[in-house]
Amino acid sequence: MRRLIHVFMSPACRVARLALGEKGIPYSLSAADDAQAHLPVLAEDDGTAITGLWAIVDHLEGMYPDNPTLPHDPLERAEALRLFEWLMTQFHEAVTRRIVFEKAAPAHTGAGDRRGPSMDSVRKGRNTLAEAFDTLGALAEERGYLACREATLADFAFAAHVSALDYFGEIPWADFPQINDWYARMKSRPSFRPLLADRLPGQPPVTHYAELDF
Amino acid sequence: MRRLIHVFMSPACRVARLALGEKGIPYSLSAADDAQAHLPVLAEDDGTAITGLWAIVDHLEGMYPDNPTLPHDPLERAEALRLFEWLMTQFHEAVTRRIVFEKAAPAHTGAGDRRGPSMDSVRKGRNTLAEAFDTLGALAEERGYLACREATLADFAFAAHVSALDYFGEIPWADFPQINDWYARMKSRPSFRPLLADRLPGQPPVTHYAELDF
Repeated sequence: MRRLIHVFMSPACRVARLALGEKGIPYSLSAADDAQAHLPVLAEDDGTAITGLWAIVDHLEGMYPDNPTLPHDPLERAEALRLFEWLMTQFHEAVTRRIVFEKAAPAHTGAGDRRGPSMDSVRKGRNTLAEAFDTLGALAEERGYLACREATLADFAFAAHVSALDYFGEIPWADFPQINDWYARMKSRPSFRPLLADRLPGQPPVTHYAELDF
Repeated sequence: MRRLIHVFMSPACRVARLALGEKGIPYSLSAADDAQAHLPVLAEDDGTAITGLWAIVDHLEGMYPDNPTLPHDPLERAEALRLFEWLMTQFHEAVTRRIVFEKAAPAHTGAGDRRGPSMDSVRKGRNTLAEAFDTLGALAEERGYLACREATLADFAFAAHVSALDYFGEIPWADFPQINDWYARMKSRPSFRPLLADRLPGQPPVTHYAELDF
């Protein structure tokens, strides 16, 4: 069976798991030996390895076009990719790295180094999180999902970040009812179940982490 | 005519210019009002806007499949995307941001904030540059171009970074003959000409910047 080499709290690794799940492709998980490697890596049955989220997404879309993770309409597709890129780069650097990568053990994040004092980093991340959640919440309310009426790669990317942040209780849900509604729908997808079963040794999730109706 | 909204020293903006050039698509350049916006933006003739490098590349490949920037072979394609992602995220953060974004005026880079003391940042960037150039030089020598025998998005991404670094004289060419050879071939492509004509007000390039046989 094909294997996904990953670390648990890397958003890129979580997006790859969601994309495999959305396409109904069976796979097993392997913990990365070197958390600082370029992850995730999809090791195919024939011995070839596809490295990095973009290569994996492109590979899955090319080989398994059923249940596409990108819309067919060119403008919706461009919008999904705009948000996907922004979430995996800007949002990742400004929010998830600053919070999750400070809280989780480095072996589970792929973090190379920690930047500056921990609580200062977390505080900055929380401020940026609030701004971004307002913006993304408005999109979800207006469109149904982030880029259009259907869930796309943009939603899987955001859900990957949200799930990692929520694992550590870092989302003030009462402040973001639109994101709460959107995330409840994302969590109920079958592709999400494996992520909700994640448990880091010595770092259990907050109690509501796996609740579908929270 | 379609317009590319950009800043001169952002590698992502430079890749978009190369991709448009490779496909022979005419466009005009507009300087971004807000260098911190999500750039580049491709403003199409019909008023639609495609935002971010990934969306633009996907859009151009979908609408203008001639002169593809990604290989047809699935494994070469995955390798090109692996390197592309790595260059636009890891290499960007560890090298280009640390050097070019310290040296160029922020209006030309899209840099939000500068991290820590300038010379310390530049020094770290130079060390990482040397390691990365050794690795990428070996790939170029073995394969011809970075991912395979033809230039792909991986090469355009690396050439975008190299050209921004070279503008400021930050590449010790004598140390990297393999990259020198590869870059001479990249610079001779017609798509590269507009980049070699770049001149920042008050910050002229080093004298060899636009020389094709350097």
